[in-house]
Amino acid sequence: MANVHELYSELKKEMRDSFTLESIFAILDFDGETIMPERAEEFRGEQAAMIQGLRHEKLTSPRVGELLDQIESMSTDWAPDSVEAVNVREWRRDYDQQVKLPRELVEAITSTGIRGRAAWTKARAEDNFALFEPWLEKQFDLQKQAAEAFGYETEAYDALMDQYEAGAKTAEVAEVFAGLRAELVPLIQALQEAPNQPDMSKLEGSFDIEKQKAFNRQVVSTLGFDFERGAIGITTHPFCITLGPHDIRITTRYEENRFDTAFSSTVHEGGHAMYEQNVSLEDWATPAGTPVSLGVHESQSRFWENQVGRTRAFWSKWYPLAQETFPGLKDVAMDDYLFAMNAAQPSLIRVDADELTYNLHIMIRFELERAVFNGNLAVKDIPEAWNEKYREYLGVEVPNNAQGCLQDIHWSIGIMGYFPTYALGNIYAAQFTAALEKQLGPLEKLIAREAYPEILGWLRENIHRHGRRFTPKQLVEHVTGEAPTSKYLVDYLKSRFGGWYGIEL
Amino acid sequence: MANVHELYSELKKEMRDSFTLESIFAILDFDGETIMPERAEEFRGEQAAMIQGLRHEKLTSPRVGELLDQIESMSTDWAPDSVEAVNVREWRRDYDQQVKLPRELVEAITSTGIRGRAAWTKARAEDNFALFEPWLEKQFDLQKQAAEAFGYETEAYDALMDQYEAGAKTAEVAEVFAGLRAELVPLIQALQEAPNQPDMSKLEGSFDIEKQKAFNRQVVSTLGFDFERGAIGITTHPFCITLGPHDIRITTRYEENRFDTAFSSTVHEGGHAMYEQNVSLEDWATPAGTPVSLGVHESQSRFWENQVGRTRAFWSKWYPLAQETFPGLKDVAMDDYLFAMNAAQPSLIRVDADELTYNLHIMIRFELERAVFNGNLAVKDIPEAWNEKYREYLGVEVPNNAQGCLQDIHWSIGIMGYFPTYALGNIYAAQFTAALEKQLGPLEKLIAREAYPEILGWLRENIHRHGRRFTPKQLVEHVTGEAPTSKYLVDYLKSRFGGWYGIEL
Repeated sequence: MANVHELYSELKKEMRDSFTLESIFAILDFDGETIMPERAEEFRGEQAAMIQGLRHEKLTSPRVGELLDQIESMSTDWAPDSVEAVNVREWRRDYDQQVKLPRELVEAITSTGIRGRAAWTKARAEDNFALFEPWLEKQFDLQKQAAEAFGYETEAYDALMDQYEAGAKTAEVAEVFAGLRAELVPLIQALQEAPNQPDMSKLEGSFDIEKQKAFNRQVVSTLGFDFERGAIGITTHPFCITLGPHDIRITTRYEENRFDTAFSSTVHEGGHAMYEQNVSLEDWATPAGTPVSLGVHESQSRFWENQVGRTRAFWSKWYPLAQETFPGLKDVAMDDYLFAMNAAQPSLIRVDADELTYNLHIMIRFELERAVFNGNLAVKDIPEAWNEKYREYLGVEVPNNAQGCLQDIHWSIGIMGYFPTYALGNIYAAQFTAALEKQLGPLEKLIAREAYPEILGWLRENIHRHGRRFTPKQLVEHVTGEAPTSKYLVDYLKSRFGGWYGIEL
Repeated sequence: MANVHELYSELKKEMRDSFTLESIFAILDFDGETIMPERAEEFRGEQAAMIQGLRHEKLTSPRVGELLDQIESMSTDWAPDSVEAVNVREWRRDYDQQVKLPRELVEAITSTGIRGRAAWTKARAEDNFALFEPWLEKQFDLQKQAAEAFGYETEAYDALMDQYEAGAKTAEVAEVFAGLRAELVPLIQALQEAPNQPDMSKLEGSFDIEKQKAFNRQVVSTLGFDFERGAIGITTHPFCITLGPHDIRITTRYEENRFDTAFSSTVHEGGHAMYEQNVSLEDWATPAGTPVSLGVHESQSRFWENQVGRTRAFWSKWYPLAQETFPGLKDVAMDDYLFAMNAAQPSLIRVDADELTYNLHIMIRFELERAVFNGNLAVKDIPEAWNEKYREYLGVEVPNNAQGCLQDIHWSIGIMGYFPTYALGNIYAAQFTAALEKQLGPLEKLIAREAYPEILGWLRENIHRHGRRFTPKQLVEHVTGEAPTSKYLVDYLKSRFGGWYGIEL
């Protein structure tokens, strides 16, 4: 009879093959977003479906189930946080997630997603919620069925979040968010009434795109993005994607009249990429060598984008080069430019929001999703509830549903329980930074002396190298000694924005 | 029992799946050549091997053999040149090619290729043929075994050529080449002694690369390349690749100090792409909708590159735009530029050769390969034989083997019987053009009035749409009423080069 090491090796090989297929899918995806011609889309769907089908077959093969059963029934000398124990535990988690959803439900979610997305597109274009409502109703219903199939302890929404943020509990997230909201709502108001206000026109100018590319490349390379193991492409919506252990790519979008947009998105995606580039290579293609969650991923992108890339310490080094590169910046004082880059202003559209108000956009979505799930809100009443929350949290009047509850694609394709990970990312980022500063000293000083290898080394050692050893919550506790809390984010935001707006908070 | 239509449908589905896998492989390839980071190469090999393995499994599955056997044993009402009959015939051909080679031989060719290529690289760098000789010996031996496995009627070399140019017979090709050589050798000499000689420095200048891109894009789009179904990438070695029925891409390489190199390679690859874009779409992923051979493919690229893209008729329209786009051309008379673009000069290196002398580079390789195959030349004597032929045909002294018989990679990886297709392409191109002119009038006049849709329409109707219905030789006979002959190429070359060099030929 095979011993546990042989079974483990066989399982590892199977899972590696499924990872190889996933990475091939990523190549198709990257190509599709960057260079594929218009009319190739339909056949690309066939190519992608073939790879996804092969991958699904591998992931859900009875042999994988058998191997897991056999390994779990045997006694081993693996420590609970050993690579082997972690991998078997997480392969089980993935396998269960793959096999728990009945095939018909998966197909219903997909087909409802295709038609729901089309309905959403039309509804948004025509500002007509009624067109989308039946599809949204259907999608919520399917997601409830999915939650039942996955199973949960307390509330169904837990099961949805668990897909993106393993082990996250709705009640805990709600509490953390509530604390954050209580601080942010008055803070936003105070900033609006502050004596200093940013001049947003400072961001406008003429910025040669080839020069932007070279500048951004130099920046992310300095921060730690490894171009021997990565590349940058151009897409309408920036993203980060992993095509292999030494092939982690980011994309960005350039605007000729703005420099800060591509810059920030490059550093943001670069943050995601540095996480992917710094997992444990010897555990690549196993859970122990895989980023743990969307929230922790977002903490890395936000850290580099905001806590590094919008600071005076950073720009004191780089602004002179920027001025040399882009003649229009010659007459713009660094602090004027930076204040505009650090503006916090309530707005209607999530994707355009700044790092402060963004959190409230997220909370609104989280609260509405949860309310529908728990039967406290009918789908037909979403527009009114949406507008009410925008008024209450952000002080803005939503003029129509197109700029309101129809702005995001996510619900139309059945992505629910996903939004909270964005705000969790901000929360984790601030909490991680506080821990980093305890060990390495003030971040500002590290940035000022360009100690990026030291910063990245700390992130690698404390976060990246763990892969999926811990749940996100356990990881935060392990690194910071505390459960996730919004207090560090609140302190950080008060200090950052109070400084620019010239008020004591 | 299943009827023949059901069996045909099942076979078509299997073959389509293998085509989908091939197209996925093409995506990996294109990505690997254009943007993949350096260190991703090794894992990309694993990804590619997985797809190739799946494809090979499909192509050689016993079920495919059964389906072919069954269909072939049934009586049908398919006409011999119907899509169904053509497809079954060609699927059989492909299947036999896939299954005839023993697995050990395929593996030996691959592993010898890997080590032979490394030996070749070193041998070329050090100009040391002896380092490469044992590998070349081995590779010739393996290719002889492959020829035996494939089977042939007259001589073993037939079986090798047959992989690239179905049905081509060595003796016939040799005869056509001999006729061509008898004309070209004195022609080259006459041109060297002609009163007019080109000033090659006219090609040098400063050409903004972004502007080159835009110019070339506009040209190939005008000629008929469909950008909704294609794209252009950048690579060291230009190529054309098909990633799907609506996804045919070309690549090129830009030089800042030369405009003609990227221009010609773009039009050349564009010619390949227009063939791929104009096969019968309803037969896509079957032999009836697939280009027939490398030689016919090359005829299309050479047609557009040389017979269109180097003519006064073409440039009379485009040179003014080129002068407007590239200030350095302002002081260069069109005819001076064009004469330099149409220079014919004996040289050592095949890939840098002009359209006239290129054919002799090919013949030399063909003659040497054949001689080794037929036992008339020992591998150790290749350098001497090579140098002798360069002296005799091109009048050049080969100073060393690095610039002589070690210049091409092909032999090191076991590609033999492939070179002749390049010269066949030139021969077919001239012969097709003569037929086109009989029907549509002088090509020069068609170009002068930019009748590109008419030209491309003729190529589509007479060549592209047939797919693999005919063998290349049959296709030439079908289109031109004659077997392949070098006389049209000779007439064309005499007229073209005689004109520029100012001599009667």
